[in-house]
Amino acid sequence: MTGPRRAVRATDSFHEGGIMDRRRVLGLAGALGAAAALPGLATARQKNEGQPAKARGRYRRIATEEAFATQPQLEGYRDIGKYLTQGADFNFTQILLGDSEYAKRQTPRLLDIGEGRIAQMDADGVDMQVLSLTSPGVQVFRPDTAIAIARESNDILAEAIRRYPTRFAGLAAIAPQDPKHSVVEMERAINQLGLNGFIVNSHTNGEYLDEEKFWPILEAAEALDRPIYIHPRSLPEEALGPFRPYGLGGAAWGYAVETGTHGMRLLFSGVFDRFPRLRIVLGHMGEGIPYWVYRFDHMYATAKRNWGTGSLKEPPSFYLKRNVLITTSGMFSEPVLKYCIEVLGADNIMWAADYPYQDSREAADFLDSARISEADRIKIYSGNAERVFHLKT
Amino acid sequence: MTGPRRAVRATDSFHEGGIMDRRRVLGLAGALGAAAALPGLATARQKNEGQPAKARGRYRRIATEEAFATQPQLEGYRDIGKYLTQGADFNFTQILLGDSEYAKRQTPRLLDIGEGRIAQMDADGVDMQVLSLTSPGVQVFRPDTAIAIARESNDILAEAIRRYPTRFAGLAAIAPQDPKHSVVEMERAINQLGLNGFIVNSHTNGEYLDEEKFWPILEAAEALDRPIYIHPRSLPEEALGPFRPYGLGGAAWGYAVETGTHGMRLLFSGVFDRFPRLRIVLGHMGEGIPYWVYRFDHMYATAKRNWGTGSLKEPPSFYLKRNVLITTSGMFSEPVLKYCIEVLGADNIMWAADYPYQDSREAADFLDSARISEADRIKIYSGNAERVFHLKT
Repeated sequence: MTGPRRAVRATDSFHEGGIMDRRRVLGLAGALGAAAALPGLATARQKNEGQPAKARGRYRRIATEEAFATQPQLEGYRDIGKYLTQGADFNFTQILLGDSEYAKRQTPRLLDIGEGRIAQMDADGVDMQVLSLTSPGVQVFRPDTAIAIARESNDILAEAIRRYPTRFAGLAAIAPQDPKHSVVEMERAINQLGLNGFIVNSHTNGEYLDEEKFWPILEAAEALDRPIYIHPRSLPEEALGPFRPYGLGGAAWGYAVETGTHGMRLLFSGVFDRFPRLRIVLGHMGEGIPYWVYRFDHMYATAKRNWGTGSLKEPPSFYLKRNVLITTSGMFSEPVLKYCIEVLGADNIMWAADYPYQDSREAADFLDSARISEADRIKIYSGNAERVFHLKT
Repeated sequence: MTGPRRAVRATDSFHEGGIMDRRRVLGLAGALGAAAALPGLATARQKNEGQPAKARGRYRRIATEEAFATQPQLEGYRDIGKYLTQGADFNFTQILLGDSEYAKRQTPRLLDIGEGRIAQMDADGVDMQVLSLTSPGVQVFRPDTAIAIARESNDILAEAIRRYPTRFAGLAAIAPQDPKHSVVEMERAINQLGLNGFIVNSHTNGEYLDEEKFWPILEAAEALDRPIYIHPRSLPEEALGPFRPYGLGGAAWGYAVETGTHGMRLLFSGVFDRFPRLRIVLGHMGEGIPYWVYRFDHMYATAKRNWGTGSLKEPPSFYLKRNVLITTSGMFSEPVLKYCIEVLGADNIMWAADYPYQDSREAADFLDSARISEADRIKIYSGNAERVFHLKT
C-alpha cells in the first residue's frame, strides 16, 4: 500500500546539522517576502488518500510539532549572520535565507500559514496543525531582539489561527533569555491571544529550563495550564566536539542528545515536585528517554543508596509518566510506538509530523496502519492533544 | 518469585559519575593488596536458585561485560591521582582507591578473579564470565604507562583463564594512545594468550575509533576475527557541561551518550565498508542506538538527497545489524529486549550482567523469565557469545 506512493515524495529536512559545516549558504533568498499559497504542492501528491475527518468521525488527525517561520524571525537571522560567523546555530539559521534548492523549497512553506499550507494539509489528510516557530526560534538573539521577535511572531500566529480556527492551533514563542519578560508574554499568549502552549528550542545560551533562573517560566506554564514543548536544536557549541563528524550533531543523533538531556535534567532536578502540574512535551518519541526508563530509575536508586544523592519524592520515571508527553514527530516507527505504549501508556503520546521537514502523509500512514488498539489510535491522533493543548473539540 | 529475593540484595554501581564531584574519596584502600576469595558473598544470597548449567543442558549463562581490576591498574590510578585533580576520570578512578563503604565492597570484588568470584557466580547461576578490565581501563594513562599496564593486566587475565578455563574468558586491554603498539598487543593477546576479544573504554583523550589513526586497531581486530567491546566511560571533559547536573554524566544518561555517540560515529564513518568483517560490541542494549534505527536511516537518506553527503554503501542500520552486537548489561528490561529482537534480531544480542556493579542474579532472572522464544534465549545466553568470542563449547 505504501510502496509506490513513497516514490513520488521528496521530503526534506534541514535538521542535518553538521552538513552545513561543509555547505554554507550565505546568499539571501529573493522571494522571502511572499508568503504565497503553494497551489502546486497538493497536486504533486495523490489526493484523497487520507480519510476526511468527518468520514473518520471518531478523531481528527492533529499534528502537534509543525513548523512555521515569520518574516521578523528571518530578518533576525539575516542580522545575526552579520556577526555570528560559525557554529551550528549560524548554519541552521542562514540556510533558510540561502538560495539552495532546499531553501527555495522550504522557506516559502515555512512562511505560509494560510491557504497553501491548508491545501497541503488537505492533501495529506491532516485536520489540524499545532504550529510552532521553527527552531532555533528566537533563542539565538539578544534578549531585546528575542522579546520583540517572539511577540511579533506570536501576533502573526494568533492571526492565522483566528482566520482558520478549525485548522490551526499554536504554541507561543518565548525568550528564555529574559525569564521575567517570558512570563509576561506567556500570559499574553494564553489570555489575550488564545494560544495553546509554548515552544522552547532546548538550551538558551547553554542553559536549561531546570535552572532556577527559569523557574518563573515553569511556574507560569503550570499556572496557565499549558505545556512547554521542548524542541530540538544543536548542542551548545562547546559541547559539540564529539558529535561534529558525519553530520551527527543534527537530526540523526545530536538533536536527540541535546533535547533528551534537557528532558533528563528536568526529570532529575525536582522541578516536577515543585511544579507538579507542569507539562512538558518532547518530540521524536521522547528523544530517547523512554528507552532508558528501567536504567535511569535503577541508577537513581543505586546512587541514592550508595551516596545519599537525589531528593526526588518519586522515581524519575514517575515524572516522565505524569508530567511529560511525547510525540511521533520524525519517528514513524511502529516498534518504537508499541514500545512507548507499553512503557508509558497511550495517554502520553501525541501524533506529530514535523511539517515541512517531514512528510505528513507518511506520518499519517504510519499511525493509520500501526497495529495498536483503536482506542489508543484515537488518543494519539486527537484526544491527548485536545486535552493538553485545550483544543476545541 | 523475585520480590522477596530482591530485598536481601545490595548491588552497587560506581557508574553514577557526577556524584563523585560532590563526594571525592581521596584515601587509599588498605586492603588492595589482597585479592582474596570472598567466601561470605555466596552465603549472603539464597543459593541454588539458578538452574545448574548441566540441568539446563541447552545453554550456558555466559555473561559478557563483567569487570575486573588488577593491582597494576589501581596503582596507576593512584599515580594519576597525584597530577589529575579534577574531572570525571579522576573521580571515576580514585573512588576505587578510597575507604568508602562502596570502595571497601567493590574493590576486592573487582580484584578477585579466583575462587571468591566463582563462588558468587555459582550462587548467581552464572556459568562463565567474559572478563574485561574495569573502565576507564588504561585509557587515562600516558602511552607508555598504558601499554605496560595493559600488557601486565592481560597476563594476569590470561593466567586466571588458564586456571578456570570453563568459567572465565576475557577481553584484552589495549592502549589506543599508541595504535601501532595496540596491534602488537592485540596479536599477542589472541595468538599467545588465547584471549577472546578487546575492550576499549570509549574515547581516548577525546578521540574515537572511527578516526583514521585508529584504523590499524580496527584492521587487526578484523584480521584476528575478534570483536572490540566499546565500554562506557565519561564524556570528554570539554563536552561534559550540559550533563554535569544531578549526576547525569554517569550511568543514568551520560555514559550512554558517550558510548552511543562512539557507536554512531563508527556506523556513519564508513569503517564497516572498509573492514566488513569487523565486529563491535555495545553494552546497555546498544547504548540507545537501536531506538533510533528508523530515524537515522531516514535522516542519512534525506541528507544524501538534499546535500549529497554520505558515502556509505548501505544504510547505517545495515552495519548495525551486520557488524554490531549489543548486550543486556545493566538493562534488564523485557520491553527493551523484545524491541531489540524485533528491530535487530536475536543473533545480535548477548547476555551480560556487569558484575560487580550490577546484580548477576537479577540479570539471569530477567532473561530466564523474558517472554521470548527458547531459541532466542539460547542464542542470547550462549550461542552468540560462543560464536563471536570463539568460546569453547
